[in-house]
Amino acid sequence: MTKYVYTFGNGQAEGRAEMKNLLGGKGANLAEMNLIGVPVPPGFTITTDVCTEFTANGKKAAFALIEKEVQAAVAYIENITGTKFGSKENPCLVSVRSGARASMPGMMDTILNLGLNDLAVEGIALKSGNPRFAWDSYRRFVQMYGDVVLGMKPHSKTDIDPFEEIIEHMKEEVDIKEDTDFTVENLKTLVLRFKAAVLKVTGKDFPVDPWEQLWGAVAAVFESWMNDRAIYYRRLNNIPVEWGTAVNVQAMVFGNMGGNSATGVGFTRDASTGENMFIGEYLINAQGEDVVAGIRTPQQITKIGSMRWAELQNVTEEERSSKFPSLEETMPTAYNQLMEIQEKLEGHYKDMQDIEFTIQDGKLWLLQTRNGKRTGAAMLKIAVDLLSEGKIDEKTAMLRVEPNKLDELLHPVFDVNALKTAMLIGKGLPASPGAATGQIVFFADEAKNYENSILVRIETSPEDLEGMNIARGILTARGGMTSHAAVVARGMGKCCVSGAGALRINYKTRTMEASGKVYNEGDWISLNGSTGEVFDGKVKTQEATISEDFAKVMELADKYTRMSVRTNADTPNDAVKARQFGAKGIGLCRTEHMFFEGARIKAMREMILASSIEGRKAALAKLLPYQRADFEGIFEAMAGYGVTVRLLDPPLHEFVPHELAMQKELADEMGLTLDQIKSKISDLEEFNPMLGHRGCRLGITYPEITEMQARAIIEAALNLKAKGVDARPEIMVPLVGTVSELKNQTDVIHATIQTVFAERNAKIDYLVGTMIEVPRAALTAETIAKEADFFSFGTNDLTQMTMGFSRDDAGKFLPDYLDRGILKNDPFQILDQQGVGLLVEMAAIKGRSTKPGLKIGICGEHGGEPSSVEFCDKVGLDYVSCSPFRVPIARLAAAQANVKKNG
Amino acid sequence: MTKYVYTFGNGQAEGRAEMKNLLGGKGANLAEMNLIGVPVPPGFTITTDVCTEFTANGKKAAFALIEKEVQAAVAYIENITGTKFGSKENPCLVSVRSGARASMPGMMDTILNLGLNDLAVEGIALKSGNPRFAWDSYRRFVQMYGDVVLGMKPHSKTDIDPFEEIIEHMKEEVDIKEDTDFTVENLKTLVLRFKAAVLKVTGKDFPVDPWEQLWGAVAAVFESWMNDRAIYYRRLNNIPVEWGTAVNVQAMVFGNMGGNSATGVGFTRDASTGENMFIGEYLINAQGEDVVAGIRTPQQITKIGSMRWAELQNVTEEERSSKFPSLEETMPTAYNQLMEIQEKLEGHYKDMQDIEFTIQDGKLWLLQTRNGKRTGAAMLKIAVDLLSEGKIDEKTAMLRVEPNKLDELLHPVFDVNALKTAMLIGKGLPASPGAATGQIVFFADEAKNYENSILVRIETSPEDLEGMNIARGILTARGGMTSHAAVVARGMGKCCVSGAGALRINYKTRTMEASGKVYNEGDWISLNGSTGEVFDGKVKTQEATISEDFAKVMELADKYTRMSVRTNADTPNDAVKARQFGAKGIGLCRTEHMFFEGARIKAMREMILASSIEGRKAALAKLLPYQRADFEGIFEAMAGYGVTVRLLDPPLHEFVPHELAMQKELADEMGLTLDQIKSKISDLEEFNPMLGHRGCRLGITYPEITEMQARAIIEAALNLKAKGVDARPEIMVPLVGTVSELKNQTDVIHATIQTVFAERNAKIDYLVGTMIEVPRAALTAETIAKEADFFSFGTNDLTQMTMGFSRDDAGKFLPDYLDRGILKNDPFQILDQQGVGLLVEMAAIKGRSTKPGLKIGICGEHGGEPSSVEFCDKVGLDYVSCSPFRVPIARLAAAQANVKKNG
Repeated sequence: MTKYVYTFGNGQAEGRAEMKNLLGGKGANLAEMNLIGVPVPPGFTITTDVCTEFTANGKKAAFALIEKEVQAAVAYIENITGTKFGSKENPCLVSVRSGARASMPGMMDTILNLGLNDLAVEGIALKSGNPRFAWDSYRRFVQMYGDVVLGMKPHSKTDIDPFEEIIEHMKEEVDIKEDTDFTVENLKTLVLRFKAAVLKVTGKDFPVDPWEQLWGAVAAVFESWMNDRAIYYRRLNNIPVEWGTAVNVQAMVFGNMGGNSATGVGFTRDASTGENMFIGEYLINAQGEDVVAGIRTPQQITKIGSMRWAELQNVTEEERSSKFPSLEETMPTAYNQLMEIQEKLEGHYKDMQDIEFTIQDGKLWLLQTRNGKRTGAAMLKIAVDLLSEGKIDEKTAMLRVEPNKLDELLHPVFDVNALKTAMLIGKGLPASPGAATGQIVFFADEAKNYENSILVRIETSPEDLEGMNIARGILTARGGMTSHAAVVARGMGKCCVSGAGALRINYKTRTMEASGKVYNEGDWISLNGSTGEVFDGKVKTQEATISEDFAKVMELADKYTRMSVRTNADTPNDAVKARQFGAKGIGLCRTEHMFFEGARIKAMREMILASSIEGRKAALAKLLPYQRADFEGIFEAMAGYGVTVRLLDPPLHEFVPHELAMQKELADEMGLTLDQIKSKISDLEEFNPMLGHRGCRLGITYPEITEMQARAIIEAALNLKAKGVDARPEIMVPLVGTVSELKNQTDVIHATIQTVFAERNAKIDYLVGTMIEVPRAALTAETIAKEADFFSFGTNDLTQMTMGFSRDDAGKFLPDYLDRGILKNDPFQILDQQGVGLLVEMAAIKGRSTKPGLKIGICGEHGGEPSSVEFCDKVGLDYVSCSPFRVPIARLAAAQANVKKNG
Repeated sequence: MTKYVYTFGNGQAEGRAEMKNLLGGKGANLAEMNLIGVPVPPGFTITTDVCTEFTANGKKAAFALIEKEVQAAVAYIENITGTKFGSKENPCLVSVRSGARASMPGMMDTILNLGLNDLAVEGIALKSGNPRFAWDSYRRFVQMYGDVVLGMKPHSKTDIDPFEEIIEHMKEEVDIKEDTDFTVENLKTLVLRFKAAVLKVTGKDFPVDPWEQLWGAVAAVFESWMNDRAIYYRRLNNIPVEWGTAVNVQAMVFGNMGGNSATGVGFTRDASTGENMFIGEYLINAQGEDVVAGIRTPQQITKIGSMRWAELQNVTEEERSSKFPSLEETMPTAYNQLMEIQEKLEGHYKDMQDIEFTIQDGKLWLLQTRNGKRTGAAMLKIAVDLLSEGKIDEKTAMLRVEPNKLDELLHPVFDVNALKTAMLIGKGLPASPGAATGQIVFFADEAKNYENSILVRIETSPEDLEGMNIARGILTARGGMTSHAAVVARGMGKCCVSGAGALRINYKTRTMEASGKVYNEGDWISLNGSTGEVFDGKVKTQEATISEDFAKVMELADKYTRMSVRTNADTPNDAVKARQFGAKGIGLCRTEHMFFEGARIKAMREMILASSIEGRKAALAKLLPYQRADFEGIFEAMAGYGVTVRLLDPPLHEFVPHELAMQKELADEMGLTLDQIKSKISDLEEFNPMLGHRGCRLGITYPEITEMQARAIIEAALNLKAKGVDARPEIMVPLVGTVSELKNQTDVIHATIQTVFAERNAKIDYLVGTMIEVPRAALTAETIAKEADFFSFGTNDLTQMTMGFSRDDAGKFLPDYLDRGILKNDPFQILDQQGVGLLVEMAAIKGRSTKPGLKIGICGEHGGEPSSVEFCDKVGLDYVSCSPFRVPIARLAAAQANVKKNG
């Protein structure tokens, strides 16, 4: 016969930690604590199987299964505690809590003091010698039960809770301000009135039978598994409905039974710094919720903690020891026991624990233990410390660090206290992490006029590059996570908030309107690129600091990884930075950014607007030396590693001037009329530039561009080789959809390179490959591979085309999609594994079916996102490439993926 | 031992018709004619295997294989003809021709009179009694051999042919105008000078040994297999290099040996009308090329043909019978023999034959037979006639009609004679077939001012619909084969040329500049929508006529098809027209076109610009009755068949006014300021509208739109049901990429419909399905299918996203891609089977893996293109849907696909 109810208590338990699927996280840990000798109030867990039965076949069927077992389990509690359900003398009171495999918001949480009724309350009053405590517990129970189990909780925040209404009336009647001022008589009246309200609303009397109370609470937990919020949360987090929730029923213990009782919470190590030191707070004569409610000031558990606290709060030692003594001082026995237990728990779970405890009449009870949440810095330190303490091995230590948390360590953050008073004036997308504070400028070339500037634009364009580099942060009103501003900012490691649509930016008046306030050039604002928040005025920031623990974890990552990590870098500076972060090569060097400075952009525009091939070639000849010099710098910075250079990709329209004055200037320079210039520029306009004349389509129409770029790359590499530098050029053809396109371009590239080799009488190894970013390329990868030395997935564009989302326009519906759970994640941030990922996997398999050793990587934004990196490892890619500041994250994610897969 | 040379002659042959792969088309037919007793000059064929050997291992290796066989085969010819290679008395002269499996431009064509030298020429002169004939043949041979085999042919048209130069000098010397005026002595001098030129250019004497001549010619044929033009042609047509070409060597016969010799060509039936009547032309004392060269007027072969010709040419019977008598009259014996043979050939090949013959000294020789090219009308008539004559069966008759040729029968065409003098002034894409002539208007609402107008626009928009309907034809400067103008015109069956980029259209001055000439409103132009040509002035057109043969072939198609054919139709008119063409249902009814007339567009704009859900609902309530009425008309026209209605798809931007005046009007109507209207319109602008806020994304953001449309559809269907009309609504959700999107919309649709059912207390069957047009939908079709009653492939958008081609912008590079052979076809016209087709196939398989009986169709433009229809049949789709005028083509293509696959 299947067992549906698992008891625990008195150092014994029918369950254990490994039974999370059956008992839920909380139930499994309660059992486990018993087994390792931690004092836990006795109780039992109803399994998740019962929830499944409840959902499928209803309450009657489910309860028939467990009726006898529950009765026996209650008797088990009564036995251990020497109490009796519904007894006047010694009533048995329990708590009822839900507990799924994973913590799940939306579920019914807790019913305390179940078992109380008009008889039992007298028993408690007598037993505790504290009638006020007994009656306050009773009125709280009726209210909680009424709200949660009997469905009297208001559905929206504007509706009135009938119980709260009664309390407010009562306060007026007796003319008091605080709940705590109610007398025992007042509380008794409240209970009566509460019960009357229950009868009025539900048409039934409040249940006085503890058994009826218990079954009602259990049913409420199971019903909450199917409520809208829980369903929504499960859909978002891909949790199957079949998992179900368990129910935990446990004997009550009270921290508010007088001066010898207390309640508290603690972390076995400092959750903020990771320091190996117990940190916790407690309150004497209090319930668990009082510690976090903020009405009374909680006290520190350890004496040293208490003294540190006093120093920070400017509290004298005298005041401290009298008003805020530590548990170590007030209840040394319980304290010592707690220290023993916390050590035991950490040793047992081999991780920092977050614990809850209650001391009732001097006896310590543990109510919960779980792995504690922590900051990025603490995560690193704890993992490395546990490793050096010999508690965990290298792989485990590495797996303990969430890659995304490293971001906190690599960028400035706001000072936590400064944030408390900061005024939020807008919200956009968290486009590039970090915190920045500065004075507003609306035009890139004015960023240099301020020591700390924030560049505020409707959107940015490649012309703004220099100003973006100078500004402390970038704020745009339009554009998504992969807009120009976002991509460039991440590359620079600079804070950026993009797509803050509610801002009204007016370039003419040089004003920005946000939350009803008008900001002018020079006004201070602050940005949090990790959250997308925009604040009024200056907010204090803290600089990033990289610890030794960081280096240790990176070392472990490199030891256990299969994939290597490259960077996306367009300049020698970026390349140097990325190398410091551990990048082994460049996966994407975009050449278009190189065309925007001074004389280059002029030559570029001449090339674009030339009406003959001769005109184009003359302009390209001017660009060649610049490109060659750029490549020399980059190859040198990445000496010894491959550098993948993508040939010109964006539509030419992006390079021509759109302001009248610049068009006039250009017309004069080129000896054309303004109308001619305008007409040529208008010829370049496209309905859907994303799907237009760009990528290899440019190189096919104008092979002379490809020739110039191939020449610049190879001449640069040969120049360096002559100086003894190990340059490893890899030329990448963008936006290929058919093998004929690639063949056309590789023919041009190889022919050009052979010419250069002949001219120089020197050779160098090089590769020619392609981006896989058009769905058709992935679908026909077995033929594309014939002409390619390598594949690199451009998952930004691949996502755009596979999902039909323009990243620049998705802002109109993507937030809505995320809110409604139609998409779980922004697919431009986290790779869509079912759709886009399927193409990636197909292309890798098909490509290698033609060329078994084909080198394959990814250079889209996803290359620095941990779950996407894990996917890349799974489908066998050779490397991922990401912006310099994401390199450590990618290194760690790659190693974790490999260890998770292969152990 | 492999046989490399196959002889034929005297009613015997080593090859036969089925050996086309080995002997090429020409060689196989020459053998076959021998076998069925048709007189053919003896000869032999060197197999395609030798070409492969030649290409792989060179001339020496290849010739070593065949030397002995060729010697024997030449002896075979000598034997039959009683001649001898190089003999003075009785020289053996041969022709050498290439002959691949499929006719292939770019290959070496023909060398005639090979075997002539200074001795042989004397023999021919003696034997023919015609020294002028002998020497003229000799000088032609030297010239042809020099050009083709010895490589003296000029490489470009501007270079001078050394032989032509010598001829020109000679004409000046002897002061004559025509080649035919050369004396025998002149011809002898020419031969000497030709040989001297050969020595000078090649450094070698002209080969006098017939064997050397023969091997040279054979090598030249094989070499031509690898020349640039042949390689280019093969790449375009997907012909593998391994196929190779055969070489045909055949004894010469001469139609120019005097009054008892002649040469001619003929068709066994009228290639223009299909009438069962031999049609052919001949010339006495002439060579084959003279018949087509146009120097002499060819005469008709049959007497009745000759008399008809005379009537048309206003030639009196006296003049006819003296100057242009028929072969029937001049050489009755040969004529009768020819009639017997043509009947035999048609009976043998069971198809209309295109034959070439020569009569030498009264003896008839057939030189070639092949299936004759014919017009669409002739193709139909011949197929139906051959069927009723019992020569072919139904399936064969049906397979004989090329579906695309039906287009000629469904649209007006230009009068062939009128075209001869028409002045071409521009060229665009053949966007919608047919011919049209009319007066230019630049604005849609002015089309009605002329009886025959041509609407000339840079591009069209939905606002132009009414004017497009009135105009005879549509010409646009921008946009591809699936631009708005093209799609709408095809739907209307109206002639359209799109993307004529060289036109300069100026709306302000109401002028169009083309080929340097300025056209004003009211000027006449003519369009050929089947070729993309634009002509100056009026060009006479002929109306379309549909024959009984057409109906017969359609009947056969329906008998043998598996897939059904639906139509894309947005109005009751289109639906009626399509039903006449045999459509069984509507595969795509676009609702957006319904929003553009009068009061509708106003309500639509109110809806779009409303700032609250209430405002939108109020506007939608105004639209509901219009939509319902539209659907009633369409359902009624398609009673008994399914009608797939696609919910609103285009970005809302397309519906708002872009001219200032209309914006002002709208502002007044809506009680808003102009700035507010402008700001709202500018908020709707997108960078890449194709990938933006459209399709189901609109319905998700504004569920009230979906509700209104679902209501209108179901109310219309219920209204008709009440009248006894069998309405079968199928609601289609566009642009779905994830199952959650579809689920969101099907929930709204089902809920709305249940409400309508309850209101009306009536029900009707309906389906809810989705378009598969986003690559991700195809990739995840197994989950999408869970929420869909049917799939319909929107291959226009699927092509755009899979290939990354914006159809509106592809004009910038697609022509170039086609010219260079990077793409074989415009993927918007002919489905890209490797890429887009793979997604279609995957989606069909995945969709049916979830729902085995899932109904699947295609509603993109490809649904009316024969090779794409064949693909749809192959991957198991249930139906194709296309514009009304393509329905017959699709029906035939679908049936042919089924018969080809299953026999």
